Amino acid sequence: MSLKRPDFRSLLPVSVRDGEGLHQALTHRSAGGRHNERLEFLGDAVLGLVIADALFEQLPDAPEGDLTRLRAALVNRESLAALARESGLEGTLNLGEGERKSGGQRRDSILADAVEALIGVTYREAGMQAARDFTLALYAERLASLPSAESLKDPKTRLQEQLQGNNAELPVYEVLEVAGPDHQRQFTVSVHLPTQGWGQHGRGSSRRRAEQAAAEAALRRLQQTREQ
Amino acid sequence: MSLKRPDFRSLLPVSVRDGEGLHQALTHRSAGGRHNERLEFLGDAVLGLVIADALFEQLPDAPEGDLTRLRAALVNRESLAALARESGLEGTLNLGEGERKSGGQRRDSILADAVEALIGVTYREAGMQAARDFTLALYAERLASLPSAESLKDPKTRLQEQLQGNNAELPVYEVLEVAGPDHQRQFTVSVHLPTQGWGQHGRGSSRRRAEQAAAEAALRRLQQTREQ
Repeated sequence: MSLKRPDFRSLLPVSVRDGEGLHQALTHRSAGGRHNERLEFLGDAVLGLVIADALFEQLPDAPEGDLTRLRAALVNRESLAALARESGLEGTLNLGEGERKSGGQRRDSILADAVEALIGVTYREAGMQAARDFTLALYAERLASLPSAESLKDPKTRLQEQLQGNNAELPVYEVLEVAGPDHQRQFTVSVHLPTQGWGQHGRGSSRRRAEQAAAEAALRRLQQTREQ
Repeated sequence: MSLKRPDFRSLLPVSVRDGEGLHQALTHRSAGGRHNERLEFLGDAVLGLVIADALFEQLPDAPEGDLTRLRAALVNRESLAALARESGLEGTLNLGEGERKSGGQRRDSILADAVEALIGVTYREAGMQAARDFTLALYAERLASLPSAESLKDPKTRLQEQLQGNNAELPVYEVLEVAGPDHQRQFTVSVHLPTQGWGQHGRGSSRRRAEQAAAEAALRRLQQTREQ
C-alpha cells in the first residue's frame, strides 16, 4: 500500500497539534535535548492496545492465534514506517546533523518510532479516547482490508494443518547438510510427506529457515498437484 | 515475594465479579466451551499499557531503556503467576480433567494467562479506568518497590558501562571452544579487560550465554578488586 492519506497533523487533536509535545514527538535523540524515546515507549503500548481491541471487536469468532498474527502484521516497524510515509511524516522530523546527512528522514526505524511517539503524546495530552481516534484514523484502511489470518501462518504450520485436514501423515523434516563457516552457516533440510510419497528440499541460514523453505516448496507442489 | 494480598475477587468491579465473563476468564481451553484465550490476548495489551503508563509517570527522568527493562521485569509469566498465587487464583480455575490431574492449577503459564484474562474481561465489561484500577491494585506493592533499573541490565551491558565510566578500554570477547553435539553445544568464551590486564572465562549453551557468564565473572572480580 502506498496510498496518500490525510496529513498526520490533520488527524491529531487540535490541542496536540498546537502543543509543545508535538515538537518533542518528532525529535529523534540524535538532535539532542528533549527527544521522543520515552513517548515512543508509551505510544507503543497504546498502539498495542488500540489494535488488539479493534481486532477483538472486529473478529468476534477469531481464535487468539489469529488475533496475535494479525496484530503482528499490523504493528511492526515496516508497517509503521509505511504509515509514516503515507501521512507525510517524512521531512518533518528533527534529527541531528549526522543522522540527517545519512538519510535518517527515510529510515524505517526512525519513522516508526515517530509514529509511536505521536500516539504517545496524544495519549498523554489528550487522553485514551483521543489516542484511539488518532490511531484508528491512521489504520483505517488497513483494518478495513485485513489479510486472511491463514495467509499469515508460517509455511510449516500451514503444511501441517493442510495434511491434518486431509488425514494425511505428518511431514518429516531432516537436516541433510550444514555447510559454511560459523557466522555464515547454510542449512539444507528435506521434508518428506509419507502419505504423498514425495519430498522437497529447502535451504536457509538456520535450521528453522531451511525447514520453512522446505515446507513452502511442499505447499507449492501440493497446490500444483491439486490443480492438475 | 509471597505476601498474601486481598483476594482477586475483592479487587474486581462488582459488575465483573457478578457477571458471566468472570467464569470465562477463569476457564482454560482444556475445559472446552468458552475459554479465556481471547480475553487473555486483550488483557495482555491492557496490562502492557497500564504498566507502561504507571512507569512513565512514576519515573519522569528515566530513559526509555530503563522503562523497558522495568516493564519486562513486572510483566512476565513468572511475576504474573506469582501475583495469581498471592491473590488466591490457584484452585479457582476451570480446567479439563487431564490438565487438572497433571497439576494445571499450579502451572505458571495457566495462572499467568488467567490474570491477563481477568484484566481483559474487566476492560471489556467495565472499561479502561476499571481495568487500570484492578491492574494497579494487583501491582501496588511491586510498583511501590521497583528494582533498580541498573540491576536489570544484563552483565555484558553492566560491564561495558562500568568500564566506560572509568575510562577503561572496552572488553574483548573471544570464543575459545565449542564442544558437544549439535543439540547440546557448550560454548566457552573468554573476556579480556585490556586496561586491567586480566580476563575471565564463561560457559553456556550459546555464545551469548557464555559471554554473559564471562562478563558476570569479570564484574565479580572487579568488585573484589575494589573491596581489597
